[in-house]
Amino acid sequence: MANLDPIEYEQASSTVRAVYDDIMATRKTDWVNNFWKVLAHHPDNLQRLWNNIKQVMGNGALDPLTKELIYVAVSITNNCSYCIASHSASARAKGMSEEQFGELMAVIGLANETNRLAVGYGVPIDEAFLPK
Amino acid sequence: MANLDPIEYEQASSTVRAVYDDIMATRKTDWVNNFWKVLAHHPDNLQRLWNNIKQVMGNGALDPLTKELIYVAVSITNNCSYCIASHSASARAKGMSEEQFGELMAVIGLANETNRLAVGYGVPIDEAFLPK
Amino acid sequence: MANLDPIEYEQASSTVRAVYDDIMATRKTDWVNNFWKVLAHHPDNLQRLWNNIKQVMGNGALDPLTKELIYVAVSITNNCSYCIASHSASARAKGMSEEQFGELMAVIGLANETNRLAVGYGVPIDEAFLPK
Amino acid sequence: MANLDPIEYEQASSTVRAVYDDIMATRKTDWVNNFWKVLAHHPDNLQRLWNNIKQVMGNGALDPLTKELIYVAVSITNNCSYCIASHSASARAKGMSEEQFGELMAVIGLANETNRLAVGYGVPIDEAFLPK
Amino acid sequence: MANLDPIEYEQASSTVRAVYDDIMATRKTDWVNNFWKVLAHHPDNLQRLWNNIKQVMGNGALDPLTKELIYVAVSITNNCSYCIASHSASARAKGMSEEQFGELMAVIGLANETNRLAVGYGVPIDEAFLPK
Amino acid sequence: MANLDPIEYEQASSTVRAVYDDIMATRKTDWVNNFWKVLAHHPDNLQRLWNNIKQVMGNGALDPLTKELIYVAVSITNNCSYCIASHSASARAKGMSEEQFGELMAVIGLANETNRLAVGYGVPIDEAFLPK
Repeated sequence: MANLDPIEYEQASSTVRAVYDDIMATRKTDWVNNFWKVLAHHPDNLQRLWNNIKQVMGNGALDPLTKELIYVAVSITNNCSYCIASHSASARAKGMSEEQFGELMAVIGLANETNRLAVGYGVPIDEAFLPK
Repeated sequence: MANLDPIEYEQASSTVRAVYDDIMATRKTDWVNNFWKVLAHHPDNLQRLWNNIKQVMGNGALDPLTKELIYVAVSITNNCSYCIASHSASARAKGMSEEQFGELMAVIGLANETNRLAVGYGVPIDEAFLPK
Repeated sequence: MANLDPIEYEQASSTVRAVYDDIMATRKTDWVNNFWKVLAHHPDNLQRLWNNIKQVMGNGALDPLTKELIYVAVSITNNCSYCIASHSASARAKGMSEEQFGELMAVIGLANETNRLAVGYGVPIDEAFLPK
Repeated sequence: MANLDPIEYEQASSTVRAVYDDIMATRKTDWVNNFWKVLAHHPDNLQRLWNNIKQVMGNGALDPLTKELIYVAVSITNNCSYCIASHSASARAKGMSEEQFGELMAVIGLANETNRLAVGYGVPIDEAFLPK
Repeated sequence: MANLDPIEYEQASSTVRAVYDDIMATRKTDWVNNFWKVLAHHPDNLQRLWNNIKQVMGNGALDPLTKELIYVAVSITNNCSYCIASHSASARAKGMSEEQFGELMAVIGLANETNRLAVGYGVPIDEAFLPK
Repeated sequence: MANLDPIEYEQASSTVRAVYDDIMATRKTDWVNNFWKVLAHHPDNLQRLWNNIKQVMGNGALDPLTKELIYVAVSITNNCSYCIASHSASARAKGMSEEQFGELMAVIGLANETNRLAVGYGVPIDEAFLPK
């Protein structure tokens, strides 16, 4: 752990406050989660990452809930406790039901199993899956 | 690589054929992809995995396309070439548009970045994300 | 890829040849596999790694075949094609049967699945598993 | 973390109790570890995973202790704290000595090192390791 | 694999060409590597990623060669063949000597070994490493 | 977790004490961190790993700070909390500034993102990156 304390709004520079303000306005909430408050120790990282998240996670060809499910799948596969907690919470806030969560977990678990089997058996890619 | 050749239908035992038949009937196709043909060297594994896939990947609280997107996200994070090829093909077959694929890649990429940052910075989990 | 050609015995320095000789003598074979021939570009790495392998992989409280099975399990989980190929070959040479290989794959696959589920569900460690 | 409390036997549905009963009968114990009690929130996952574990982890061409060692190797490589704790405990219960544990750790560590070196150097697979 | 052909300059839209032009101007070269030409299928991803790379990989408190070494270390640990090839080439172009490459590999290998040992042994973090 | 208590100098065998002494002498400090004190349960592992670390992490073609940055990059990518804490502390002790730490994190994060994109898109390796 890098052991950097979260930087609260009151302590923050104006550059950092501007990002916090944008996070709260975009999310229509009145608080900022610790991920951003720790990143704030390096304002360049804070701004760059927030710009990326804002651009990628909004509505598009995929709806925001589907994007959160994908985020949770990656976070579990990478074993990131913070990310699992925060994106599971976001997914629930965006409507994920308990039944959907159960199916999400089942797919993640099984994909991790078959991934290793395909690699371990060295399965050759089928013609039908190659580009034409 | 385990270097086991795919077992074709003609060479297969009746146990293996029964699984191949069920795969084709379930998917309404007339072919079986190499993953199953290599697993067929160990019929217990073949049957067990197919039973799992059949139970997990069908329609439920999450639709089959969403499940494929989650599968692709895990497979890319785990770096499984075979699985990326096969499940991207399945996702396209189930209606994934090119624009959706682009957004899927963006979410996967960004989740991998923020996962490492959250771990590297040792971000403490917010109260709001803890169970009540 | 680092794109370094394997260094053959004829081209090798005397330091490198001494390691090749020890590899062949220890293994009672007349050839050296590519892993060592590529490491030979950095003789310090070659010597250090060979000393480690020699110390760790021999007979001990665990027999050499069991050690190879563990090596294969790690290599598949890490997705290292070269290592899967070489250590599967070693395991077969040390007596791994086809049936054992099938069970090895089943355990590896299932462990990868339950690993992600335990992390994703955030399962608390049972008292009984904690140190006394 | 998904933050789901373990479901105790008293609170459990009859479907869940049936799985708990089978776990205890199969293992000849009078308790169920948290992994299953959390999975119980999604009875389909509970049943499916238990069926898999029961089928895969019993006696076969590989003995149960060897299977636990493989499980520990995968769990350490995947960084799953819960799984490391539970399967190390199982391995000890099945007879793993302290000396065997030390050798297990040595093989896991070294395999993780050489896996990265083989990938980083891009070592080409030897003819002798390819299928004939 | 997603199986998308690289998009050459001649076929590219003006948006994509503008990014290609900036890549070549920034790097003072007359070609663009395949990573960008494949990302060009999703111009939003192309632009976003290039902006990130340009901002992060230039000169700063860390020199560009050190950044490439870090990039190679991550890419080997993640097993990304394309990234290992491209960032090893960049590191060499920025002055990495063969001896430095050997030491880079040694550190990467050993870090991967001790990472697993620290996790597997569950080593408690020393007071001295905690924040004050 | 393996749940082995750190072995203090006073309890240690003479073999273990000799390694502790060498660690303190090499590092010019009067304490030993927990990693070694837990490894001490298996003196062969303790000695072997310390010999490796001593050989690899000293001054060479790469300076010790650069080696620590690489170590941190691997440890974050592998999600090893202990290793992140200890090697971040070592990097700071060897002169890493807060600004350098911010850039290190930025490179690690971005490398993890582009690694997955290169794999997910199946980007073909450019001729220019292949060996001549």
